[in-house]
Amino acid sequence: MKKILLLGAGRSAASLIRYLLTHAAANGWHLTIGDVAVEHLQQTVAGLPYAEVLVFDVHNRAQRAAEVSKADLVISMLPAVFHPEVAKECVKQGKHLLTASYVTPVLRELHEEALQKNLLLLMESGLDPGIDHMSAMAVLQQLRGKGARLLSFKSYTGGLVAPESDNNPWHYKFTWNPRNVVLAGQSTSKYIQDGTYKYIPYPQLFRRTETIQVKGYGAFEGYANRDSLSYREPYGLTEIPTMLRGTLRRPGYCAAWDALVQLGMTDDSYQLENSENLTCRQFTEAFLPPASGDLQQVQQRVGAYLNLPIGSDVLQKLEWLGLFTDAPVALARATPAQVLEKILQKKWRLESGDKDMIVMQHQFVYELNGKKRELKSSLVVKGEDEVHTAMAKTVGLPVGILAKLLLQGRISQRGVVIPIHPAIYEPVLEELKQYGVNFVEQEREW
Amino acid sequence: MKKILLLGAGRSAASLIRYLLTHAAANGWHLTIGDVAVEHLQQTVAGLPYAEVLVFDVHNRAQRAAEVSKADLVISMLPAVFHPEVAKECVKQGKHLLTASYVTPVLRELHEEALQKNLLLLMESGLDPGIDHMSAMAVLQQLRGKGARLLSFKSYTGGLVAPESDNNPWHYKFTWNPRNVVLAGQSTSKYIQDGTYKYIPYPQLFRRTETIQVKGYGAFEGYANRDSLSYREPYGLTEIPTMLRGTLRRPGYCAAWDALVQLGMTDDSYQLENSENLTCRQFTEAFLPPASGDLQQVQQRVGAYLNLPIGSDVLQKLEWLGLFTDAPVALARATPAQVLEKILQKKWRLESGDKDMIVMQHQFVYELNGKKRELKSSLVVKGEDEVHTAMAKTVGLPVGILAKLLLQGRISQRGVVIPIHPAIYEPVLEELKQYGVNFVEQEREW
Repeated sequence: MKKILLLGAGRSAASLIRYLLTHAAANGWHLTIGDVAVEHLQQTVAGLPYAEVLVFDVHNRAQRAAEVSKADLVISMLPAVFHPEVAKECVKQGKHLLTASYVTPVLRELHEEALQKNLLLLMESGLDPGIDHMSAMAVLQQLRGKGARLLSFKSYTGGLVAPESDNNPWHYKFTWNPRNVVLAGQSTSKYIQDGTYKYIPYPQLFRRTETIQVKGYGAFEGYANRDSLSYREPYGLTEIPTMLRGTLRRPGYCAAWDALVQLGMTDDSYQLENSENLTCRQFTEAFLPPASGDLQQVQQRVGAYLNLPIGSDVLQKLEWLGLFTDAPVALARATPAQVLEKILQKKWRLESGDKDMIVMQHQFVYELNGKKRELKSSLVVKGEDEVHTAMAKTVGLPVGILAKLLLQGRISQRGVVIPIHPAIYEPVLEELKQYGVNFVEQEREW
Repeated sequence: MKKILLLGAGRSAASLIRYLLTHAAANGWHLTIGDVAVEHLQQTVAGLPYAEVLVFDVHNRAQRAAEVSKADLVISMLPAVFHPEVAKECVKQGKHLLTASYVTPVLRELHEEALQKNLLLLMESGLDPGIDHMSAMAVLQQLRGKGARLLSFKSYTGGLVAPESDNNPWHYKFTWNPRNVVLAGQSTSKYIQDGTYKYIPYPQLFRRTETIQVKGYGAFEGYANRDSLSYREPYGLTEIPTMLRGTLRRPGYCAAWDALVQLGMTDDSYQLENSENLTCRQFTEAFLPPASGDLQQVQQRVGAYLNLPIGSDVLQKLEWLGLFTDAPVALARATPAQVLEKILQKKWRLESGDKDMIVMQHQFVYELNGKKRELKSSLVVKGEDEVHTAMAKTVGLPVGILAKLLLQGRISQRGVVIPIHPAIYEPVLEELKQYGVNFVEQEREW
């Protein structure tokens, strides 16, 4: 009997839980699911001898230690901020850990101790980071095997709404943490292009997009992630002249989001005065120069301020959000970003029956036998419904599969590891195909 | 014999030192000047029985305690970051303290203890903050005395170059800490206009300027300071519908500075890769999208990127800075802001014989006897040369005068205080007139 402790049973854990429960009996697992709220899981585990739920408070040190001590493997789907404490507990007690979150400097410091204790802390094992690493490394290995020299690698991922559920002018709905969407890109974005380091400050980020075509799904626009440089080394691409990692949205999103950025609505650094008494229109007005002349309507004033014609797509998107209405903000001591998040949550909610869609595309340019070629590797995954979303599936399934491989003793790496080793990613990518997580490759001369 | 310990003998202390030495003998003062570098003062104090210089290291706790213990009054012109330590030492040892720096929350916490020990910690006593408080309060007192109701108060200050020494297209030279000029405005600026709170994010700040006319000196442009709200209470203006504090530049400066902001050159949050090997042109290129088509020249590319016509004033100002040249940056592990500061320091240096200029203007709108009136109170001070600058004079003289008043026992306030009390500011403003620091008032119907 192998004991798995899963911490965190939020939205993105639905598919992971289903995977673990499906494979538990055959593999001899016992699964304990801990979260602050577990009522929604009581029925799922009812009558299953190999599963239980547990009200778990990550801040409760004694409980944390006690539960970790009983486990053979800890999987954490908690917010990333809790991972240093969880990881330290695992290392202390000699337990393997599996997460979908980034390796931060604090976590990297545990590498030596984990190695000494023969432990695996396998991080960045969800979608992005996760499937992006695995699928990119698989292509890179194939190209290297042929003797190709890599000239450019660009990789984009987006969590979007599926076309059949897309009924808003932003062509976007929330499928993960809304706060992260609102705050995205606030640090300067860094990448390298033709051997030149490039830096995009926040006020330019949503203007410097590239158009990405995905066969059968049309056009997307990509904006650069904060750090496209740090994966050059783990990917073995330290000499590559061009490398960019980005986020995908539907065309038009970025121009409209840029308007919110330029207004100052994504600012999370200060609290608005009197935010609880503002209407949405007053919230918008707070960012505008004082009214003058005949420009009295807030929509006209936003247009004049940001140089957007009345009737333009951008102004229509802002209007659709309700930013020019007298609806109350009703949020006390709020930052602009918190007010905006509240407004967006009403408008961008995944409704019952809605399907989301994950889109990922890697673009490689390489030289082989004196010829330049481009290879695109694209993934599209649609959700089943608003619970078993494509996001939950693509984040949770690789974690579930890796848990299985780890408990079956098929992963020999130790220390703080990300899934860039063939022995790790090959079986994951293979099994993911059964779930419709399948990359399509297109190649052409460049 | 009263002992004054002056900490910090940098550029802005020149006029203060001259004032203190001039008045020392008659007032029975002994002046000790401590700084990390004091060679430049050896000759100034040579042969003066009432003055000495001292190599002083603010990080040396023992020396700090020893020197403070000998003093009756400590004046600190050190960078503001050192003031918590200096102020705590003063309170501990029961010494009065005088500075030209802002009251921060840490310093405000010393208020009660200072009161109990009958000590005065008189802060914000230079130019801005300092003369701005004193001169504004003097006008406000006069208006209130007449029964006026205040509708609007805007106050602008700028440290600029005098017209006769203005030989560059930015019409600006450094007269104080260049780093602060480069980083100015990075937090969202807050003010209130017609009863509505307004927030200007950094990427809009240098676009939302107002034109300010100063009689005899032409036009200036003002951009909003970070916080125009917190002085409403100390000024007794909690109900005022409009209040703005701003910084003055010559027309055209802000549009060109905005280009640097939009490029990302004022960013201090990350280090450039390989900064030591960049040329100025490559530094500029790092912020541009990759070259494409026939736009190969970096100046053309900046123009196309920021929508600036070739030959425009803004592009000419950037060209004049040398941003399109192959001159080496030669600064290792530098942030963009640090590189920009280095480039600016070469171009915006106050040369031998150059005169600087301080400009301050308060704009009051008030209602009296059913009529609306506007009162402008303006100050222009020019420097003598590149050492006795208008900046050094207007920062140092009020500090010197307040030191005299304090040691003469003419200031009864205690605790952490700023110069908003008539008993403090009236004699200072009166004496400042002798030094040409004189406000001119203009009034008209509004």
